Amino acid sequence: MKWIEGGICAAKGFKASGVHCGIRSGRTKEDLALICSDTLCSGAAVYTTNKVCGAPIKVDRRHLADGKAQAIICNSGNANTCAPGGEHLAEETCKLVAKELGIPAGNVLVCSTGVIGQAMELAPFEAGVPMAAKALEEGSQGSLKAARAIMTTDTHEKQAAVEFELSGHTCHLGAIAKGSGMINPNMATMLLFLTTDAAISSEMLQKALSKDVPSTFNQISVDGDTSTNDTVLLLANGMAGNPQITAEGADYFTFCQALHMVAEKMCRELAGDGEGCTKLLECVVTGAPTVAVARAVSKTVIQSDLLKSAMFGQDANWGRILCAIGYTPGDFSVDKVRVWLESKAGQVYVCENAAYHEYSEEEAAKVLAEKEIRILVDLGQGDQTAKAWGCDLTYDYVKINGDYRT
Amino acid sequence: MKWIEGGICAAKGFKASGVHCGIRSGRTKEDLALICSDTLCSGAAVYTTNKVCGAPIKVDRRHLADGKAQAIICNSGNANTCAPGGEHLAEETCKLVAKELGIPAGNVLVCSTGVIGQAMELAPFEAGVPMAAKALEEGSQGSLKAARAIMTTDTHEKQAAVEFELSGHTCHLGAIAKGSGMINPNMATMLLFLTTDAAISSEMLQKALSKDVPSTFNQISVDGDTSTNDTVLLLANGMAGNPQITAEGADYFTFCQALHMVAEKMCRELAGDGEGCTKLLECVVTGAPTVAVARAVSKTVIQSDLLKSAMFGQDANWGRILCAIGYTPGDFSVDKVRVWLESKAGQVYVCENAAYHEYSEEEAAKVLAEKEIRILVDLGQGDQTAKAWGCDLTYDYVKINGDYRT
Repeated sequence: MKWIEGGICAAKGFKASGVHCGIRSGRTKEDLALICSDTLCSGAAVYTTNKVCGAPIKVDRRHLADGKAQAIICNSGNANTCAPGGEHLAEETCKLVAKELGIPAGNVLVCSTGVIGQAMELAPFEAGVPMAAKALEEGSQGSLKAARAIMTTDTHEKQAAVEFELSGHTCHLGAIAKGSGMINPNMATMLLFLTTDAAISSEMLQKALSKDVPSTFNQISVDGDTSTNDTVLLLANGMAGNPQITAEGADYFTFCQALHMVAEKMCRELAGDGEGCTKLLECVVTGAPTVAVARAVSKTVIQSDLLKSAMFGQDANWGRILCAIGYTPGDFSVDKVRVWLESKAGQVYVCENAAYHEYSEEEAAKVLAEKEIRILVDLGQGDQTAKAWGCDLTYDYVKINGDYRT
Repeated sequence: MKWIEGGICAAKGFKASGVHCGIRSGRTKEDLALICSDTLCSGAAVYTTNKVCGAPIKVDRRHLADGKAQAIICNSGNANTCAPGGEHLAEETCKLVAKELGIPAGNVLVCSTGVIGQAMELAPFEAGVPMAAKALEEGSQGSLKAARAIMTTDTHEKQAAVEFELSGHTCHLGAIAKGSGMINPNMATMLLFLTTDAAISSEMLQKALSKDVPSTFNQISVDGDTSTNDTVLLLANGMAGNPQITAEGADYFTFCQALHMVAEKMCRELAGDGEGCTKLLECVVTGAPTVAVARAVSKTVIQSDLLKSAMFGQDANWGRILCAIGYTPGDFSVDKVRVWLESKAGQVYVCENAAYHEYSEEEAAKVLAEKEIRILVDLGQGDQTAKAWGCDLTYDYVKINGDYRT
């Protein structure tokens, strides 16, 4: 399994584009991305658990009910959520794409990210979809343009792809994502699109995705606020020519590994580009009695505002880590907790058996001066593990989210 | 029922003091508070749910097992948590108080707040406890000094008291508290001490306190971080002479009202003095199918970092409120949600049936310029209600918690 270039277009038979169509007046950034496959794909999806959910999600649930899709259209600038006529507009957008690509509208998936509560117009799509269809291209350039078009306050585009083998056939799986940035004046969204040329049934594709999300995307937090539009979409067109995966087995396992590798990479990208952040925080929990406890502890640690502030201040404040571990719900003890802080500058052992472990503040300062910080927590009561990803809490987070009117 | 002066000393037979004994070298602020009753009291308590819990809490659980107590000793500057010999030191502190007051050590309760993970010395207590015992005084002065001595980064002392009648006898219930401030370099604590001269059995006292806490102190959040040392203590010495409350009835109901009135006042004080905050946020949820849903929604709203940042920026960002309502766990629908923003400057109706309701941005700006903001949420599907209290998220929060080393 190896990293390759090409992002969402790394898989055979996928093209993508990103154009400007003017969803928000006065902005010139690309705001419309189109991704499509030469052939019909197995499709799988995971959506936000927020009870307030965007109109596009309602449409996608219908369009993916048969497990098949061929294209994804995504705009930034308006989330099409809590706004009048949203579902109708999302359906109309799919029809525009269907017409350009010559495919059924029911095979088009749609996503939106941006402001909520504001009505969206169809006009920009009427102009933009034909442009996007015309601009479709293979390879890294297509992926890059689509990755840019879905960005909101992300500071850089997010792409990844891997190459792997299934029954002797070379396969590819790639992704683009937009992160936990914010568009004034409302919340934004995590969107992740994945494509693969592996042949896999809709059922197994959904199974692989559903199995992976709890250990990856559900373990990211920038500020604990679950968006109304979070969506992960995965399309598999089978053009790699491998025998279709229709049950668990060696190929399914390899496919899951590839998916997990790309997903974890995207988690790090998304958390590390959290609003206003200066550092990526990764919490690795080991020695947990259950996976659920391991996941809960790691996520609670990276969600603590106190710890996030301390990391911004480069302070080895292990008491805050212990505090967060302690208020994690679940049945486990804290008596044997050990904590290390780690980065490429080294490692400091700061807490043993839930109490202070002597360390050099100088060394700790060096470790915490790095951009990627790992918090290692061993609970000492089992062999289950989990990871979670977050970022530090900074002046800029408050500025981006509170201060933009002044 | 009416508000009166006197705080923790408003109830007959209670004295208090606050002195400086030097728990943390280099600080001259009062750091030791003593509260005691002339006679033995019924006692009740509620403690942190954090699995990492301070040594004093372990001692208090033992000392209150019989439902009786007569004095409270509390230091700031060191939380006596995750530190060697903590329980022994807490027991020794109780003995020092017992010796000075001529009461059994088992009737003394002890609390600590401040740094965690650092060993505490007995020497400051050996010097300080006799000073504190000598300084004990009745009335507002005693309460004020104790309220100051338990402060950490609180910006002002927190006191309240009410007068009420039980079976024709005038009774008093008062409190002091310290808030969700932070002591460098670790987390601090919510401490609340309540005293009353009402006669009430230990069982009914604990029942009244346990019943009140879920709707008051459990509904405050400054940053979602549950401290290791949070403690609420309630002592009742019966000196008002009312027939002792030993069962539910009119007097018990009145007592619960008095307790709730003081508790809610203190919640507002604590949330409004959150670290770095400029505004008190109160979320009032109505029309909920269950109390649990009402509590969960109100608390989720005031905990949202996105909303907290928006309130700091005085931005009527109702989308963030709706988003937080939407990701609140529980079985309820969001279709009929209505939201108002309110302060003493007026009220704006910002969201109807989960969508934008037309309002004047100018009016909204006036409402949000005030120091106390109420967020009114009607779920439109029942008649249950709840409140929660929080504060805005500011540059200073990040500064206080992240930046103190630089």
